[in-house]
Formats: sequence, C-alpha cells, structure tokens
Amino acid sequence: MKAFMNENFLLETDVAQELYHRHAAPQPIIDYHCHLDPAMVAEDHRFRSITELWLGGDHYKWRAMRTNGVPERLITGDASDWEKFEAWAATVPYCLRNPLYHWAHLELRTAFGIDKCLNPETAREIFDACNDRLQHDPDFTAQGLMRKYNVEVVCTTDDPVDDLRHHQAYRPGSGPRMLPAWRPDKAMAVEEPARFRDYVSRLGAAADTDIRSFSDFIDALQRRHDFFHAQGSRLSDHGLEEFYAEPYSDTEIAISFNNVMRGRQLSDSEVRKFKSAMLYIFAVQDAEAGWVQQYHYGALRNNNSRMMRAIGPDTGFDSIGQWHTARSMARFLDLLEGEGHLTKTNLNNLNPADNEMVATMIGNFQDGSVAGKIQWGSGWWFLDQKDGMERQMNTLSLLGLLSRFVGMLTDSRSFLSYPRHEYFRRTLCNLLGNDIEQGLIPFTGFEEKRVRQMVEDICYGNAKMYFGL
Amino acid sequence: MKAFMNENFLLETDVAQELYHRHAAPQPIIDYHCHLDPAMVAEDHRFRSITELWLGGDHYKWRAMRTNGVPERLITGDASDWEKFEAWAATVPYCLRNPLYHWAHLELRTAFGIDKCLNPETAREIFDACNDRLQHDPDFTAQGLMRKYNVEVVCTTDDPVDDLRHHQAYRPGSGPRMLPAWRPDKAMAVEEPARFRDYVSRLGAAADTDIRSFSDFIDALQRRHDFFHAQGSRLSDHGLEEFYAEPYSDTEIAISFNNVMRGRQLSDSEVRKFKSAMLYIFAVQDAEAGWVQQYHYGALRNNNSRMMRAIGPDTGFDSIGQWHTARSMARFLDLLEGEGHLTKTNLNNLNPADNEMVATMIGNFQDGSVAGKIQWGSGWWFLDQKDGMERQMNTLSLLGLLSRFVGMLTDSRSFLSYPRHEYFRRTLCNLLGNDIEQGLIPFTGFEEKRVRQMVEDICYGNAKMYFGL
Amino acid sequence: MKAFMNENFLLETDVAQELYHRHAAPQPIIDYHCHLDPAMVAEDHRFRSITELWLGGDHYKWRAMRTNGVPERLITGDASDWEKFEAWAATVPYCLRNPLYHWAHLELRTAFGIDKCLNPETAREIFDACNDRLQHDPDFTAQGLMRKYNVEVVCTTDDPVDDLRHHQAYRPGSGPRMLPAWRPDKAMAVEEPARFRDYVSRLGAAADTDIRSFSDFIDALQRRHDFFHAQGSRLSDHGLEEFYAEPYSDTEIAISFNNVMRGRQLSDSEVRKFKSAMLYIFAVQDAEAGWVQQYHYGALRNNNSRMMRAIGPDTGFDSIGQWHTARSMARFLDLLEGEGHLTKTNLNNLNPADNEMVATMIGNFQDGSVAGKIQWGSGWWFLDQKDGMERQMNTLSLLGLLSRFVGMLTDSRSFLSYPRHEYFRRTLCNLLGNDIEQGLIPFTGFEEKRVRQMVEDICYGNAKMYFGL
Repeated sequence: MKAFMNENFLLETDVAQELYHRHAAPQPIIDYHCHLDPAMVAEDHRFRSITELWLGGDHYKWRAMRTNGVPERLITGDASDWEKFEAWAATVPYCLRNPLYHWAHLELRTAFGIDKCLNPETAREIFDACNDRLQHDPDFTAQGLMRKYNVEVVCTTDDPVDDLRHHQAYRPGSGPRMLPAWRPDKAMAVEEPARFRDYVSRLGAAADTDIRSFSDFIDALQRRHDFFHAQGSRLSDHGLEEFYAEPYSDTEIAISFNNVMRGRQLSDSEVRKFKSAMLYIFAVQDAEAGWVQQYHYGALRNNNSRMMRAIGPDTGFDSIGQWHTARSMARFLDLLEGEGHLTKTNLNNLNPADNEMVATMIGNFQDGSVAGKIQWGSGWWFLDQKDGMERQMNTLSLLGLLSRFVGMLTDSRSFLSYPRHEYFRRTLCNLLGNDIEQGLIPFTGFEEKRVRQMVEDICYGNAKMYFGL
Repeated sequence: MKAFMNENFLLETDVAQELYHRHAAPQPIIDYHCHLDPAMVAEDHRFRSITELWLGGDHYKWRAMRTNGVPERLITGDASDWEKFEAWAATVPYCLRNPLYHWAHLELRTAFGIDKCLNPETAREIFDACNDRLQHDPDFTAQGLMRKYNVEVVCTTDDPVDDLRHHQAYRPGSGPRMLPAWRPDKAMAVEEPARFRDYVSRLGAAADTDIRSFSDFIDALQRRHDFFHAQGSRLSDHGLEEFYAEPYSDTEIAISFNNVMRGRQLSDSEVRKFKSAMLYIFAVQDAEAGWVQQYHYGALRNNNSRMMRAIGPDTGFDSIGQWHTARSMARFLDLLEGEGHLTKTNLNNLNPADNEMVATMIGNFQDGSVAGKIQWGSGWWFLDQKDGMERQMNTLSLLGLLSRFVGMLTDSRSFLSYPRHEYFRRTLCNLLGNDIEQGLIPFTGFEEKRVRQMVEDICYGNAKMYFGL
Repeated sequence: MKAFMNENFLLETDVAQELYHRHAAPQPIIDYHCHLDPAMVAEDHRFRSITELWLGGDHYKWRAMRTNGVPERLITGDASDWEKFEAWAATVPYCLRNPLYHWAHLELRTAFGIDKCLNPETAREIFDACNDRLQHDPDFTAQGLMRKYNVEVVCTTDDPVDDLRHHQAYRPGSGPRMLPAWRPDKAMAVEEPARFRDYVSRLGAAADTDIRSFSDFIDALQRRHDFFHAQGSRLSDHGLEEFYAEPYSDTEIAISFNNVMRGRQLSDSEVRKFKSAMLYIFAVQDAEAGWVQQYHYGALRNNNSRMMRAIGPDTGFDSIGQWHTARSMARFLDLLEGEGHLTKTNLNNLNPADNEMVATMIGNFQDGSVAGKIQWGSGWWFLDQKDGMERQMNTLSLLGLLSRFVGMLTDSRSFLSYPRHEYFRRTLCNLLGNDIEQGLIPFTGFEEKRVRQMVEDICYGNAKMYFGL
C-alpha cells in the first residue's frame, strides 16, 4: 500500500516518476487564464487567515459543505473565521474521492509544509499553523505564494471597461508578470436591455466616446481592445452557453442595437443574431491584433434563484448544461476561416459528452500555419480533476496531437490553486509512463528524447510559444 | 488466474476484501425501490420452478435470448418450463461479459449453493436441483428468499388507485417490512384521453369521491396520498421521458383537464403544460408529507409495436432515449426550492451521457439542511452493472460527495435479485481498495475509521437515515 | 518495461497472448465494408512509392500533418514524393498516443518487415526500403498485399450508377473475392436539386430507362439493385447525418420528386419526408433481396468551405456531429419490423455519446430469427482505435451479446490498412484475457471452449455466417 500523497503521488511507474521529477516539476507556470484579483497582486495582499484564503470565494468548497449538511451561516454567512474553518474541516473527511480532498492536502503540503490530514481532530492545529505563516511570514503574501510556485506569467480576466490600473501599477520584480485578458461577455448580453444599456454607457466612458449607434459601440470596443493590447493583453476569453452563427445583416444588428438602447426586449431570434454578430466582430478584432481567442461554453448558470438573490452569482449554483453545439461552432469557425480571420483559438467545453465532438472539430481548422493552431483546452471547472484531465488528454491523443497541447491553466480565484499544475503534470507523466511500461510508446533513442521533450513542452514550452507572452 | 466468482469476486486488493467482508457484507438490505408483487410477498408465494422464478417476467433474459436467436415460443410462449429453461441455459454461455452471466451465477451460488456454470451440459441437473428446493424447502418461498438475503425493508411501487390490501394483510414476522411507494404516472398521462378518463374514474372510486373538475382530481390524489402515508409510504417515484417545467396558469390546466375529460386530444404544448402542473403538484404533496421524491427519466419505451400488441409493455422492447433535460430539470427544482417545497429528491437518468449533468445538477439544490438532500441514484436499469455502477460512483465522487450516497436498490421484479446488492457492495469496496492501494486515499487513524464507516453508510446507514423508514 | 510493439503488443496477460496467437491471428479477414478502388484491385495496381500508398488519400495523416504545422503543399500539393514523405516522417514522432503511430508502425512491420521507428533520422532509409519492395517485389501489388494479409472477401462501396466493370473483370485466383456493395446516398440527396437531377439522369442511363416520375425512379433503382445482386452484392450502406422517419404520403413524395426535377428547392420538411421515404424504400429493397443493410450516421462533413473549394470532400475536414437520433431510429426500425421488412441491420454511430443508446436500440428489434440479427458496428472512423474499440466492445458486452458480434471492418481507402484487423483482434483478446485473469469469466471445461470459439467467431465466423457472402 502506497502512502497517501507521497513524493510519487499519482505516479504509478518508475518512468512516470522520472519524467515528472526531472522534466515536469522544474518547469515554470504560465497561467494563461485565471480569475485572480489584480488588486491583490498589485498590492501584494496579505491574508488575515486560512479561512480568507481558502473559504473566502471558493464555490467548490461551499458546494461540498452544503452537500454535507452545513448551514449557510457557516459557509458564506457571518460566522467567525474559526467557525467556518471548523465546519470545513468537519466536511473534509466526507470529501474522500472528491478532488477537493487532494487539492486541499496538496496545498497544505506544498505551501505550508503540513502533511497531516485535515479533520476535526487536526483542525485547530492546522488553522493556527497556517494563520501564523499567513500573518507573519514574508513569503506568504499574494506575490510570495506566486513566487513559491514559480509562476512566470499570469493572465487575469478583465472587462473591456476595466481601467487596468492595477496592471499598470504592478511592478513584477522577481515575481510573475501579470497581463490582462479581454472578456467582453457583457457586450453581447442584449437579452437584458437595462443592464446592457448601463454597460454601453460605462463602455463609452471608458473609451472616452459617446456611443450613439452600433458603429460607435464597435469603435469603442476597438479602442478598449487597443488599450488592452498596449497593456500587454494577447488573449481574449468568452463565456457562452452555446455558439451562435445565425445569418444576419448589418442593418438588422444596427436596428437591434437601437431597439435595445431604447429599452426594447429583443426576440429570441434577434438576440441570437446579435450574439452571432458580436462573436464574429470579437473574433475579427482578435485576429487583427494577432491574439489568441478562448471560448468557455456549456455552463448552465445561477440555477438556484433564491440563493442568487441572497448571495449573487458564482457562489456554487452553476452546473453542466446540454446543447448541440457542433453545427454552430463549425459554422462560426468556418466563416472566420473562409475570410482569413481565424486566429489561434482555444475551445473549452463543460459537458464531457462533447469531448469527442470538440476534439475532432479542431482538426477541421488546423491550417498548417502554426502547430496546434486550434486547441482543445484542458479539463475545465467540474472537469478539472484527475478523471477529467485523463479523459481530455486521452481523447486529444486519440483524435489530435497531444504533443502540441498547450496544457494546464488554473482558471481560479485562489492564490493557492497552483498545485493544480502539479496535479496535472503528475497525471500527464503517469499516462505516458503507463503507455511506455506497456510497450505502447517506444522509449529509446530518438523517441525517448521526444517523450522527454514532449513533457516539458506540454508543461511549459508549448504555452510559452503559443501565447507569445 | 483467479478462480471464477470466488469469495473475493470483484475484489482486487487485500484492503477491498477486508472492507467488503467486514463492513459491507454484514449490512442488511434496504430495498427502497422495487417492482415486486405485494401479493406474492403477502401470500408467501411458492414458485413452481426456477423457470417461473427466473424467466417468468425478466425482460433482461428475454432480450438476451432473442438476441441469441431463440424463438419467442421458448421465451414468452407456451413452451414448457423445461423447454424454456433449456433455451435459457443454451443462451447463458453466449452471455459472457453481460451482467446476466454474473447475476445468474451469483444467484445460483448464494441462493441454491450451486457453483457449477450453467450451460447445456449442466442445465438438467441445475433445473432439477433448483426446482427441488423451490418446491419443498421452507426457506425458498418469497419471504424465505428475502430472509435469506437479510432484507430489512422493501418498498414496492404502487399506483394511487391501488387498495394496498396486500400491504395491509402482510405480517412481517421475522421477514422484512413491506411499505408501499406512490407512483402516480397515470395521473399525468393526458396524451391519451380515453385511458386518462378511465383512470380518473378509477381514482374517484378509490378516493370515494366524484371527480368533476381539476380541483376534485387533485383532492382525490391528496386523499390517496394521505392513505398511502397512513400505510407507511414515505416515498414517491415518477417515470418520465424528460422533465417538464413550462410556465402555465391554473386556469389553463383546469381547462385542459375538462377538455381531456370530454375526450379532446390536447396539443403538444397543452400536454407539456399539464405535465408541468402535475409534476409540481406531486412534488408539493410529497414535500408537505415530508416524503422523498424519486425520478426515473430518459427511457424510450415500447419501441417494437408488433411485440407491444402481441405481449404488452415491459417485455424487453425499451431502450435508452436522448433528451436535453438540464434546463427543465433545473427550472423544476428551482421553482420548488424558491417556494420552500423542495423535499428530499433522488434523480435517476437512463442515458449515461447525462451523468455529469445530473451529478452537477444536484449540487445546485443542496441547502445544508440535510446531508445529501438531493441524491443522484445508483446506475439504473441498463446501467445497473459493474461499469455503470463504477461510472456513477466515480462521477458522484468527483462532482459530489460519495460519502453521502444512499446506495443501491434492486428496481427488480424478481425475488432472486438481491445478490445485486452484493455485486454493488463488492464494486464499491473494490473502488475504495484500489484508491487506498495507490495512495489516493489515506488509510490510517481518523481517515481509516472514516473509510470503514463510509462503507457501512453507503451499504445501509445512509439509506436508513435518509428515507426515515 | 515491455518492448515497443513486440509480438505481444496490446496483450497484457498470458491468456490473452494464447487466445490471440492461437485463435485470432490465424483467421482470414472478411472485410465487409471498405472504400478500396475496385480498378486498383482488378488491375493489380503497383504503387510507385510509399508516398502514394500512405499519403495519396489518407485524410487521417493529412489532418495530423496540418495540426503539426505542415503547409498544404507538402500534404496535398505539388511537392515530390520524397518531400511529402519527409514531412510525414517529421510529423510521426509528434503522433505518439495517436492511433496513426501504431497503425504506421504495424504496417511497416507486417508488410515490410521494418521494425525501426519512423522519424527524421530513419526517414530516407525507410522510404527507400519501402519503395524498393513496392516497385519490384511481386508480392507488393494491390492483390499481393491482400494475399499477404489473408483477405478472403472484400466488399467495396459502390454507387447504383456504377457499372461494376472492375468487379466483373476481376478474377480472384488465389486472392480475395471482391464483391460490390450498394451505397445509394445520392438517390436521397434532394436538398441540392441540380445535382439530384443530374444523378437521376445518370441513374436512368445506367438502368437503361427513361425516368419521368418517382415511380420510374424507384423502378430504376430496383433494376440496379437486381444488377448488383447478380454481381454478388449482399449488402447496402447508407451515410446519414441522422435518421429520418417522418410520416408522409406517397402523393407528397411523388410531388416533391417532380418539383425537384423541375429545379425547385424543397423546404426542410419536404426534404425530411423525402429522405424518410427513400430510407424506407431502400430498406424494403434490401429486405426483399435478403441483404444486410448498414447505416453510418452522425458525421458533420465538409466543415471547412475554403478547403472544400480547394481540394474537395473527404480530405480531412469532417468531424463528429451531434443529433438526437434515438426516436427517429426507433420509428424507422419499428415501421420496417411491423411490416415484416426488417432485414439484418448493422448500425454505426460516429459520436460515442450515442454508444449506449445504439447498444440498447438493437435489442428492441432482435426477433429470435437469426442470432445477432441487429448489429452495432465496430468503432467507426474517429473511433476506430484502441479506446474506441474497447468502449464499443465493453458496452456491447454489457448491453447485448458480444458473442454474436460480427467484428471488425477496415472502412479504408488503403491497401495497407489490414493490420487494423490485427489491432482489433489483439484488443479483443486482451479484454477477454483481463476478465479471465480477474476471475470475471470462467475458463475451464465447457466455458473455456466457448471463450476460444468466441474469439474465432468474432474474428471471422460470425461475419462469415451473418453476411452469407
């Protein structure tokens, strides 16, 4: 019986262990998509407690606690840091086999050097030990944690109206570079006219222009896109339920824009056309700037209206949706490809039932100009765990080229989530090790060198090259 | 090479073997959903032959025989018990790798102590040996078999119009308790006006009331619900193709009811609204009574019209359907949650492509009031086998809390299907054992105790607590 | 560490090795569905180079090369054979874990006796060695390769208008029999009126008749069906996006036919009705002739319009689509079954998310007349690899009878793709071996003989019996 989470955690073969320790572990982290707060980075935030760091915004943990019968007061309510931590510590032993169990203990080990298991008996001791480091140790600030995990670049997720002042103020020193990324979801959310109008007005202010027409609207977005580019942004991200590729005319879209601005609710068909137009325009802007465009699609959000009213979005009430996206995704990419506007693209599905569809879709638009031009992103959100990663890497291997994969990202709000890169790298090396052990991959001479290089590429080199950061 | 189906069948590691034999095997069975005939329980039915017991109503075996080229006469026709058994015995060796192969031999071993494999050479001997026990041994009646398998409670599946006289007549003695469960599917089947009208009339008779309006209809259902509650029922079950959560007004539904009662065929949209209303009303009735509500959705039934006319429903001509259910399921549950009417709920999908959707859906409605309040049921029907169980438990582990799972049910028409609980328990222990062996789960001190308790909980304790029977 | 691709490649247990070498490897190949060019068979084509043989039409390799950043000139352009081979050889090491890596090396080993790995360092040597054999060795022509791989029968894929002169001219000698198969897709492609009209005119010429009405059209198809039958054809194949089973009247279809012939574009609904009618008529023609009907559904084709215009269809720009097919597939089969027109049928899905649906659908229409009458085909196209095969065989095992499976086909345009049968057979034996090793399958006496026979049946005997070729 292997000890829990020892140095060869997740590594079942000798060759996997060697690949991991020699080639994967030493690579820096390029975290090309996350939800860290740029202010906390710029101001080198110090955490008042492990509760703030772990439970302040982690809806994964909140869901697990609710499932375990913990009342909301101890989750997002007004309970003390210790009370919340205690409730979490009592939940942890019920999380066996859930990725939270591995993540939490990997974080305790790699950040705090604590190799005890968290449970009601160890809760107080661990709470105190972590808080002591967080409150007093100079290496446990936001920047300190990023240095500890060898983070080279981090791309935040920012709205076109954001002023990016934290990005401008931040001076990396020996820490990671921090670049903004462009997330213009609100610029296509015409299904809620009042919010959309408010957003247009904020966009006008940010772009220092008066938006009176759809054309002004696009111009304002372009100005902000230029501004983001000047601040170092090289990628966009789009959160969608599904893809939109309805035929439309420019006149229709301009009229819809005017109608929304006059407060009219668009019909479903008008909304879909408007979204189709915006997706296309966003993509052209990215292509012209030479950026990478990312899509995250397939989430069914805010399913619990009562809790949405009580504590707002992104609090653990989203789940995996179901749509048939293949045809509209193909049409959208084909339109761009046919007009020479298809830039490097990274597609991320939430429902694993779409895995094979997406894995084969990317092959339709590889054009030989850049290796791995169209990417299928690593297991996202609910799929960001051992099984999800393995399924994504196995399917990508079978239906595309794993060698050209840009690998892992954290997509997290937490400064402690970098061990997920370690988790990913161990899983990758384990898959390769098992194949080598079984004679499915040659491992001598030229091919052995290729495998070793491939590990380094997927952990670091491919992303470095692909995103051009 | 491990011997076929020895005492460590399905248990690949030492720790799995210990967990199974020490913690899983001794637990009683709470069979919270099945299709046993209450009359056979109450009257302690004695089977005339293994053919009656095995082949009298088991559409799994019938399908396998048809696939193997066996003519219908030897399956559901007028052939003798021996002829049918002989045809089945000739089919069994062609069922290698099908769960029928394991189920049949596990049943022979655990009930009859026969460890020979069934095939044409052993058929006669096994037929005679089984029949001898069934006809003469006092432990081989319906109740005897349930005692043998340590069944503590069994919940049958009953229509609101059923008089439950067998439940009332039954005196458990040393055998299991038998409770009714509420299955009101026919009360929403307005797509067939003539049948629906007939059903309403039977419901009126059962509730001793005259149903003249939709409001009378609901009152009659409530009376029967109260009657079921008085007989010990604590759960409902609903067989659906998909979920229905269309907006509707009470007036619309009342008018639709009147139209159906006048023999009018409703439009598709009217049918969906009516079903939406009924699903909501059923759920409120369950919530007010503090019951658990169960949903089994996603079957495409009666696909072979010729055989439907010849031998009726539930004879092996159903299969896995395809629907996008996420949004309507979310709306339905959200509506109940928002109005405080969401009782404990158990969701069961037939298409495994929905697994991750359902596994994440349940997390949207966990409210911290009861651990595991919203459950995702164990692999159902076609998925009730090793792979289906493993996928359900692995996905539940990754996306929810396996620790809080209420575990296995038989959902069977057969008094010999209890070894499926053994099959499930072995599979559960094997998954845990493999994880422990690989260092993925800690297995010392507090955590070791937790794992041991978790096995007992999933096999018995969680269901005991959850269903409150 | 097992050596790469040694004689026990893919065979993890002793029993798997014995099953493969003794029972699977010696079986001849019945290749019941492929896309070989009958002219190349009849004329015993000699290949000018390994580039022609490997890269002349293999869109799998083309996709991999594009993904690896190879420009189109070196893929389908005017580069020399060596330049293209060199670009492919540079791509191969990036294909680790993709089935192309295994296929390519299995082909080099089994056809050419080359056990080096292909990479830039070995490219020239391998290129020259292969070309030497292809240009000079009498065993390396089209027929020679088929003899080498012990191909007993090959069924090509032919259009009703094909004159089958190569089938008529071909004299097998010691080589395989070559039979035509009926692929009438164009006879239902009414969505493009001009092409359809052109096709009708070619069909009239082939059937030596003047097509003036829908009834003439069907008569002409029947004549060609009779002609194919006379040439030995015993099976049809249909490439569909989804199944069509709309209600229609004969008059509607006749009118639609006339409208298309007059150049009118049909509405979506009319197109679906027409396709429903044609699918039904095709099936009746097959049933009356006692043929097997095959369906391949679920591909989203020609997604890259620019490349479609540049180099045409079937060049690597297709992918896995998404449709809900269960209900229409059931209706279509039920209609045939109810009228006694359901012949032996082989269903092939492209999206593995449909696996369980199809695996259970076939059970609805098994009628006991022929063992395995309704088949679920082996992993198709993107799924024709180790994981896809394993999933198909495991799911078929769990939800049907693996024993009655007709097994592998190549579905290939290449004379070097026969090692995929070896790949399939090794995978099959490995699955059985693992089960036996774990005590999941008995392996003594009667059952051991059954397992041994089952291997031979799935590799050869079942297809021999089923297709009646």
